[in-house]
Amino acid sequence: MAYRETLRVRERKLATRKNILTNALILLNEVGFAGLQMATLAQRSTIATGTLYRYFPSKEDLCTAVFEHATEIEVAQVQQHLETAELSAAERIAAALTAFAKRALRAPITAWALIAEPVEPAVVAARLRYRERYAGLFAQAIEQGIRENTLPPQDSALSSRALVGAIAEALVGPLAHKTEFDPNQAITDSVRFCLQAITAKNYPHV
Amino acid sequence: MAYRETLRVRERKLATRKNILTNALILLNEVGFAGLQMATLAQRSTIATGTLYRYFPSKEDLCTAVFEHATEIEVAQVQQHLETAELSAAERIAAALTAFAKRALRAPITAWALIAEPVEPAVVAARLRYRERYAGLFAQAIEQGIRENTLPPQDSALSSRALVGAIAEALVGPLAHKTEFDPNQAITDSVRFCLQAITAKNYPHV
Repeated sequence: MAYRETLRVRERKLATRKNILTNALILLNEVGFAGLQMATLAQRSTIATGTLYRYFPSKEDLCTAVFEHATEIEVAQVQQHLETAELSAAERIAAALTAFAKRALRAPITAWALIAEPVEPAVVAARLRYRERYAGLFAQAIEQGIRENTLPPQDSALSSRALVGAIAEALVGPLAHKTEFDPNQAITDSVRFCLQAITAKNYPHV
Repeated sequence: MAYRETLRVRERKLATRKNILTNALILLNEVGFAGLQMATLAQRSTIATGTLYRYFPSKEDLCTAVFEHATEIEVAQVQQHLETAELSAAERIAAALTAFAKRALRAPITAWALIAEPVEPAVVAARLRYRERYAGLFAQAIEQGIRENTLPPQDSALSSRALVGAIAEALVGPLAHKTEFDPNQAITDSVRFCLQAITAKNYPHV
């Protein structure tokens, strides 16, 4: 008879996995993906290194799961700001971008790891998938703004992807060169860049 | 006596390296980084696979060199458009972004490989370095525009990075989903997004 996992075993495994990811997130915020060592993480999670490898067979698997876990949290934050009912679409987008930038600059090592740190191909692929997720959320808000006449007509798919690229890359500078910037100014300027792009009347020379 | 490389040997090596990179660029445009096989490239370059490994000890080394070689060509194109003397700063930036987008959509597999394809960490690191190169060029043009009063005051370092992020990410959509877009419209919309961001008066809600 094949081994059947009982509900209790399954629950325990999920709890262990959650514990590993929680500790991995704390470690990520200290050392980035490059410094995320299986042995250190096992120790922090009070499990054997061999056990950790049963949950995540390689560092690339671990980093991908950590990336997804951390980014889910950020996506949820952005989504919440995009759904604030009493604001216009542009205001909601500004709020979501501001929240994203603030959270990034408050946890710069994690933000650098999620946005820009050189990582294995599987994590780069996860970045692409999540940028689509972010863009999809912004696209919905832009479409609503167009319908409500609070945003000018535009290709919402294109604008939303450009927004995600602009805010991410605008933060890469401050995150990489931590000494030469005022965080509040960087947030304001990044968000302003994005908002001007989607709210301005058509640039005449294009 | 230690072996000293003669000028002639050195020139022959450089020619072989150049030949490899030229063939690699052609191959890249057919199959992206994922399909770039050492054996195929050696065959295309009419050299032994062992010889290829003497020039590029690993696929990651090869991909990094190919990335740098291809991106140097793109950077030179952007730089040329940014230096057109008779135009305003905004017009030069629009011309440079348009040229970048046009070249990308004309060689979509190469563009996807350079901009977004999941690659090894060394190539991701090279992407970061070259995004800084692009941003530096756009920052110079933005600064000139501010001095000439053709662009509003702004943090040129931040705006230039955001420009690079916006144009790259705007193109990722069309490059990934090739069926659902009009290339000319995608170029116009991407460039307009960027130009509105840097030319518009301050967005009031930020």
